Amino acid sequence: MTDLVRGVSSPYGRHRVLEPAGVLPQQAWRLDPDPRPWPDEVVVGVERLNLDAASFRQLRSEHGSGDAVRRAVLEIVTERGKMQNPVTGSGGMLLGTVRAAGPESPLGLRPGDRVASLVSLTLTPLRIDDGLASWDGTSEQVPCRGTAVLFGRSIAAVLPDDLPDALSLAVLDVCGAPALTDRVVREHGGSPAVCVLGGGGKSGSLSLVAARRAGAGRLVALVPTEAEAALVRRAGIAGEVVVADARDPVAVAEAVGAPVDVTVVCVDVPGCEHGAILATADGGTVVFFSMATSFSAAALGAEGLAADVRLLIGNGYVPGHASFALDLMRAEAGVRELFEARETARS
Amino acid sequence: MTDLVRGVSSPYGRHRVLEPAGVLPQQAWRLDPDPRPWPDEVVVGVERLNLDAASFRQLRSEHGSGDAVRRAVLEIVTERGKMQNPVTGSGGMLLGTVRAAGPESPLGLRPGDRVASLVSLTLTPLRIDDGLASWDGTSEQVPCRGTAVLFGRSIAAVLPDDLPDALSLAVLDVCGAPALTDRVVREHGGSPAVCVLGGGGKSGSLSLVAARRAGAGRLVALVPTEAEAALVRRAGIAGEVVVADARDPVAVAEAVGAPVDVTVVCVDVPGCEHGAILATADGGTVVFFSMATSFSAAALGAEGLAADVRLLIGNGYVPGHASFALDLMRAEAGVRELFEARETARS
Repeated sequence: MTDLVRGVSSPYGRHRVLEPAGVLPQQAWRLDPDPRPWPDEVVVGVERLNLDAASFRQLRSEHGSGDAVRRAVLEIVTERGKMQNPVTGSGGMLLGTVRAAGPESPLGLRPGDRVASLVSLTLTPLRIDDGLASWDGTSEQVPCRGTAVLFGRSIAAVLPDDLPDALSLAVLDVCGAPALTDRVVREHGGSPAVCVLGGGGKSGSLSLVAARRAGAGRLVALVPTEAEAALVRRAGIAGEVVVADARDPVAVAEAVGAPVDVTVVCVDVPGCEHGAILATADGGTVVFFSMATSFSAAALGAEGLAADVRLLIGNGYVPGHASFALDLMRAEAGVRELFEARETARS
Repeated sequence: MTDLVRGVSSPYGRHRVLEPAGVLPQQAWRLDPDPRPWPDEVVVGVERLNLDAASFRQLRSEHGSGDAVRRAVLEIVTERGKMQNPVTGSGGMLLGTVRAAGPESPLGLRPGDRVASLVSLTLTPLRIDDGLASWDGTSEQVPCRGTAVLFGRSIAAVLPDDLPDALSLAVLDVCGAPALTDRVVREHGGSPAVCVLGGGGKSGSLSLVAARRAGAGRLVALVPTEAEAALVRRAGIAGEVVVADARDPVAVAEAVGAPVDVTVVCVDVPGCEHGAILATADGGTVVFFSMATSFSAAALGAEGLAADVRLLIGNGYVPGHASFALDLMRAEAGVRELFEARETARS
């Protein structure tokens, strides 16, 4: 398959790390995006990147125009062999078609399968071949021709036939959030009160319906504007919809009222840690899904507020998360309305 | 008590925030360190600051000489009215004597009580009166004359009579770690295998003995050098002591061997997230106590490794944490040896 003399590949992709030596791909500064698969790898012909929301927001705010954002993304990928925002540390995911699968790949994918990667772009070797010529830099959905590599231990989902690609990609991008919300609400037991900060967004709306199905009692969606509140009310996915700036801790606590048992943070701007903690009752749990979360603000904030609250980093991997989230989308017309309204507003 | 016209104070100290308006003290850029107490406040005459380990390490690496570190700390406190490292976001704690307690303070402290603050310096209004003249900038223990303010909802511990102040302060600085380790190990049930990264340090050694008392089965301490391994072995606080660089994920996983159920991260350098995740079995828990932890590296690392591991931010507040940690120190001669060896090595 290749004429290179090669060592043994690692299921975690260490063999693709160019610098610094010894780290795993996510920590690496630079990866080797060579589109020839090692025996346990899969190479994907990329059709679309979906940039992480916190990353895209940061890029837009730093670079301004769509053209400048496009150039910035291209420079990052060319220099690093992967798409990892140097400020937020986050990446996103991709959609494409399997081009080649090494004989020892355990992923069960075959050439021609249309897939979405469920591991972050921050650890995915990526080469862009079209200079992002078809992207105007104004949306986090990036049409793209190029190649990407999946490792033995990577995770990818074959795209379903019954949903539009863009919708599946949007769901899969955030599929860890509803799956972990489901688990946390079930672990809590009883009929816990749940609040989702950013309940009108993609991960937020899916987390709301996941919480309801997992047995949540009181179910509160916190959103930033009256317009978004109207959309969420119409979608019928929360028992209460309240409006507040999630970065203002006291405003959040006042809007939520009686502290809840589980708070899920799905707002992709910095500074939401303290509001989430204040909104949560002692003995409760905050799940941070936003990549804009600050570790120290969360840890020291809880300590400073003498809040005996469990603080969870939203691990994007929960077994079965992809099919769980796609099934929620199929079953919950209100969530689908919200997702489609976002797409329409954007185009 | 004061001739100022004042509004209503907040138990969280919002009334001390000068800028930006509306945030809580930990998020604030600048606090008002005026040493006159509001009705629910306590003012402490400061004797010593204990800088957070990650913060002190960063200051030393950025500024080099002790003199330059001293100037940097003085500048931060003068400008911001609190000690918060702008790079790490972390602070530390303080020791002092209660100077005045407002009539509505709920903390139960009286003038003359010797106390340590158990809320972070990042949210504690602080004024330094001696220019840090007695500190040479080469240790995180900072002798200091000045004043600090505790709010209604702050937490402080009266220093015990039976332990030296420096030892009590060192214990109280990290008392959240053993208390949360105790809780996580008990919640796991059975006799879980536990690994502490940085098991020779202050929070690490206390977490090891807390894990053992909470019912841990296999108990592994991971330390960076053979010299430290010898100290930990002599202290007798772990079943196994292994040597590896905690920043090298594969080295950590190899040193630990069979993945453990609970991993506690007590290493105050960046880049330990992936090793901790790789060392932990699916269904297990990683508790991150280091302020050098990166939220995105932890979240995306677990996702990228397809690791179904619960990731906990080490909340520094657990009810009863101060007396729990002081009792561990009294009962565990091995831990006390390690603490005293650190002090001796430093002086």
